[in-house]
Amino acid sequence: MSKHDKVAQGVSRRELLGGTAKAATLAGLGGAAVASGLAGLALSPEPAAAEANQPYIAPGELDEYYGFWSSGQTGEVRIVGVPSMRELMRIPVFNRCSATGWGKTNESLKILTENLLPETKAYLEAHGESREGVWLNGDAHHPHMSFTDGTYDGRYLFINDKANTRVARIRCDVMKPDKIVEIPNTADIHGMRPQKFPRTGYIFANGEHRIPIPNDGMILDEPDKYHSIFTALDGDKMEVAWQVIVNGNLDNCDADYQGLYAFSTCYNGEEGVTLAEMTANEQDWAVIFDIKAIEQAVADGDAKTIGGVPVVDGRKGSRYTAYVPISNSPHGCNTAPDGKHVVINGKLSPTVSVIDVTKVPDVFAGKIEPRGCIVAEPELGLGPLHTAFDGQGNAFTTLFLDSQIAKWNIATAIEQFEGKDVDPILDKIDVQYQPGHNHTSMGETKDADGKWLVSLNKFSKDRFINVGPLKPENEQLIDITGDKMKIVHDGPTFAEPHDCIMVPRSLINPSRIWDREDPMWEEARRQAAQDGVDLDWGEDVIRDGNKVRVYMHSVAPVFSLEKFTVKQGDEVTVYVTNMDDVDDLTHGFTLANYGIAMEIGPQATASVTFMAERPGVHWYYCQWFCHALHMEMRGRMLVEPRAV
Amino acid sequence: MSKHDKVAQGVSRRELLGGTAKAATLAGLGGAAVASGLAGLALSPEPAAAEANQPYIAPGELDEYYGFWSSGQTGEVRIVGVPSMRELMRIPVFNRCSATGWGKTNESLKILTENLLPETKAYLEAHGESREGVWLNGDAHHPHMSFTDGTYDGRYLFINDKANTRVARIRCDVMKPDKIVEIPNTADIHGMRPQKFPRTGYIFANGEHRIPIPNDGMILDEPDKYHSIFTALDGDKMEVAWQVIVNGNLDNCDADYQGLYAFSTCYNGEEGVTLAEMTANEQDWAVIFDIKAIEQAVADGDAKTIGGVPVVDGRKGSRYTAYVPISNSPHGCNTAPDGKHVVINGKLSPTVSVIDVTKVPDVFAGKIEPRGCIVAEPELGLGPLHTAFDGQGNAFTTLFLDSQIAKWNIATAIEQFEGKDVDPILDKIDVQYQPGHNHTSMGETKDADGKWLVSLNKFSKDRFINVGPLKPENEQLIDITGDKMKIVHDGPTFAEPHDCIMVPRSLINPSRIWDREDPMWEEARRQAAQDGVDLDWGEDVIRDGNKVRVYMHSVAPVFSLEKFTVKQGDEVTVYVTNMDDVDDLTHGFTLANYGIAMEIGPQATASVTFMAERPGVHWYYCQWFCHALHMEMRGRMLVEPRAV
Repeated sequence: MSKHDKVAQGVSRRELLGGTAKAATLAGLGGAAVASGLAGLALSPEPAAAEANQPYIAPGELDEYYGFWSSGQTGEVRIVGVPSMRELMRIPVFNRCSATGWGKTNESLKILTENLLPETKAYLEAHGESREGVWLNGDAHHPHMSFTDGTYDGRYLFINDKANTRVARIRCDVMKPDKIVEIPNTADIHGMRPQKFPRTGYIFANGEHRIPIPNDGMILDEPDKYHSIFTALDGDKMEVAWQVIVNGNLDNCDADYQGLYAFSTCYNGEEGVTLAEMTANEQDWAVIFDIKAIEQAVADGDAKTIGGVPVVDGRKGSRYTAYVPISNSPHGCNTAPDGKHVVINGKLSPTVSVIDVTKVPDVFAGKIEPRGCIVAEPELGLGPLHTAFDGQGNAFTTLFLDSQIAKWNIATAIEQFEGKDVDPILDKIDVQYQPGHNHTSMGETKDADGKWLVSLNKFSKDRFINVGPLKPENEQLIDITGDKMKIVHDGPTFAEPHDCIMVPRSLINPSRIWDREDPMWEEARRQAAQDGVDLDWGEDVIRDGNKVRVYMHSVAPVFSLEKFTVKQGDEVTVYVTNMDDVDDLTHGFTLANYGIAMEIGPQATASVTFMAERPGVHWYYCQWFCHALHMEMRGRMLVEPRAV
Repeated sequence: MSKHDKVAQGVSRRELLGGTAKAATLAGLGGAAVASGLAGLALSPEPAAAEANQPYIAPGELDEYYGFWSSGQTGEVRIVGVPSMRELMRIPVFNRCSATGWGKTNESLKILTENLLPETKAYLEAHGESREGVWLNGDAHHPHMSFTDGTYDGRYLFINDKANTRVARIRCDVMKPDKIVEIPNTADIHGMRPQKFPRTGYIFANGEHRIPIPNDGMILDEPDKYHSIFTALDGDKMEVAWQVIVNGNLDNCDADYQGLYAFSTCYNGEEGVTLAEMTANEQDWAVIFDIKAIEQAVADGDAKTIGGVPVVDGRKGSRYTAYVPISNSPHGCNTAPDGKHVVINGKLSPTVSVIDVTKVPDVFAGKIEPRGCIVAEPELGLGPLHTAFDGQGNAFTTLFLDSQIAKWNIATAIEQFEGKDVDPILDKIDVQYQPGHNHTSMGETKDADGKWLVSLNKFSKDRFINVGPLKPENEQLIDITGDKMKIVHDGPTFAEPHDCIMVPRSLINPSRIWDREDPMWEEARRQAAQDGVDLDWGEDVIRDGNKVRVYMHSVAPVFSLEKFTVKQGDEVTVYVTNMDDVDDLTHGFTLANYGIAMEIGPQATASVTFMAERPGVHWYYCQWFCHALHMEMRGRMLVEPRAV
């Protein structure tokens, strides 16, 4: 019985190796069994740490890389300094942020709502959790930067929301989202990657869960009538360019370096709805999308317009897609910096499958079988989920069940696949515990630099002092400059370190303060012009029926209005412009006991609208510490009661 | 002209020292002027770092202290490991949390709403930002632990919300809030401290901003009819015990080690409403509250019941309070571990004033003038805001304008005040930049250990790679074991590192998983009993008119229900019980495209209620990665359309 066969029967690598850890059977893989089985392995700190390059960044020294981290179900994006692994900034995206007012200011609500589907907007306004009609949660998995010619160009970050079927774009000049788009015809965007060549261009986005199209209740418990949708979003316009119907549940995806193909892993080829149905078969597949052929189909009219966008049928047998059989629920999908290889990670199979993109045209031409594009399939260990690259021909694959990362050589794996008696595995390292994504510095670009690897682990268990039933997860920083991997930092993470990229600081050039002409507050600019108010230096109260617009500016430590008066029942909009022009001099506007707080960056305008339904004296104050007289930076909203 | 006089006229210490930095005049103190003035000071990293004790914690090693951090306007509490300064956990309190569902689950909404004032609840339900009738933001300043006999007892954390006038209590066994209370008769809770002796006991809470009582709109622009309120909350019942009306704006507070007095700083003794009015006078005061006398007054009926609670008049001339004149807007209020001294920090005065608590009875008895309890008043530098202690007779005061911390000896300062020619200042260190609070390990207890000092700085400027117009703030870790302070770590912070405490890990003993009998989900337990459902192992759908209760449990990687069917317009409550009992095995329940996600810790139950107003097929899935088959852990909500 081969190791592979044993795995299929539910025997763990640790058992094969004679370890004492409790076997993780397929019926109880991971979860309780794995967690308890691994408990004994964590007693001693890493001896490697002492001699390794350390991530300690002395006070006043700067990190080398911007790390852009997704936060999973926290719904935000984080900027992390690498190698210090310090969180430098949170970027609220799909979540409600108490500090900045994201999800409450008019500027953020415009971005959050203007590209929702009409039926969603109607639903949210009538029945959503917020008066403003916006979801306040997200499940942000995959942060990726825009590319030009195969490498990061510092323009934008993109991030998916699995929870509410959205894709967001973040401007890297100000590190704020400027577009959030709900994707039609599909449910629960999961894998997402930008086009690498010639530029971004498209954002490829996988709708993971199969649903009826349209999902209006006419079809309910008829899973054979559900569909999965692959979407190409125009990253410049942030509009859907086209969609493709496919078979199976779309999981992760990536693009090539030639601008010809995109690749998605699919699990649940069975198209089942229960665990038993979803895992019944031995094989699922990767789908390859022929971008030029799909564009031509859309141009030629071989697409149906559904939900306002062109949808191409790319199910099995279509000429727009190729289905490459892969063992057992493949998960990660990672294009190597060599521009030639795409690694499909086996998840329930101990193997990864390496596609040679130069052979894909022959697959589409019918010259070779779909699996003819696979040039290596090394067996790495249990639960291969994702693979990263060092740019020197080596790959690093997370092994979820083994709680390890395997370093292996692509060329050697190809030789092994060709029949040579070679072992592509160069090194393995234990990580703590159950790694999901991993990422190398610049490893998703042609400029992979082979310096750092991050392992994003789902359980931390005994790695940190106990903080109660909800534990942090753990992101570990690994030095990959030597032959052996060395863990140099454990990073506790709330709630999830789902995925990340690491970009040298020279490639990012954020603004230090806002530009007064920034489009973020274009509606405030327009309204002020209509009201004849100087938005920069406003100190005006404009009454327009029962609508009141209050314009004020701030220069530390004063708001230009020390009070304003409205009537109970007025709809009040407060515009605040921060006329300080110095780095770091962010002001805030908190209206106490009204649930209102917002950030106003240096030279920015922000606004908020609310119903003045509480009579009395209500103080507003600056909550972003700005000055020795910060506590005196406040004023009063006087609300005349309705009865008076 | 003395240095003190020069300061009053607006000349900065840097100018006095002959520096080239731009002078910060009183008219433009801090803010733009200081920020630009200090830009030139940050060019070189700290040379001290190399030889200092380093905060680097090798992978697998554990931190020595739990740090409990407030987050300012982010509205949460954070657990930070010290000395690594890694964020170990976020505790959502006053904010909406996308990951855990705090602010959305029924269990959190009960805590968030059950102790709001009736008029607030009515307002929020009618006009609040959320359908559930709850504020989604907070301004969390001062996290403090419950005391027994002068030191931390590991039971509870307390935290104020300045934005919406609340105090929250967090259980340290599960690290979740269990009570959030809105304080009546006052606005904008700022300073907050627990009683140290004999135990907590009271939580003293300062209502900062003066408002009419009641604040119903009958009094508006009549500031002389506004009041400030000091509140003693019963920390066991989390109900207001009593309140005291005082003069001035209440700022920070602290308690003694004898259980006799509480102390609050007051600025704006002028009781003005504009910056000019608030800073007109040379002196403000600290108020001392005679706890026993106030308790007796309440018992004797010398209190008015207002808003349902007893309110004592403690304005100037009252026998319940003493007003100790202090120069110019005192801010921080810090009781020393010696049990004898309370330090009042000058803010706009370069001095701190040291009160000897043993002299306070003589003040109340009229035997000495109020300032007779002051035994030292050293001049430390510009902008003294807060003071921490090492337990060895030394104090560490943040100097906001100087961007420094001054280490000084209390006994020497007393000698100087008595006329000896001695200098109490032992050391000064530059911090980056504009420090607010600082804190030493155990420094607010009788067990101050003199190991670590944290400086919580309002500006980071050039200390980190630029992340756009919104910069992090900076918390710096300082080794205070030697004669000289040494900065060993810079920590970027979102949005504010407002205040913190550091507690040895031996004093905290959190649960590893939940207890099935936990009161957190008592309403779910009661409802399940009424419905005849086994809450632990539920797999039931109970229809009750147009209300539907769905009970399911989770054992990785399955929910007990792979589908359930409801009708459009139903009010649906989903209860999920996590029957896994292993550390770290948190599950989640995300209902896609319904804006719903919640955490269910091991052995916990959580629930959420929503209107099933979107017809069609909606997947729910586990968003807390739990298993190799995590992605298959899902099911379908089938919503029959109203028209069918």
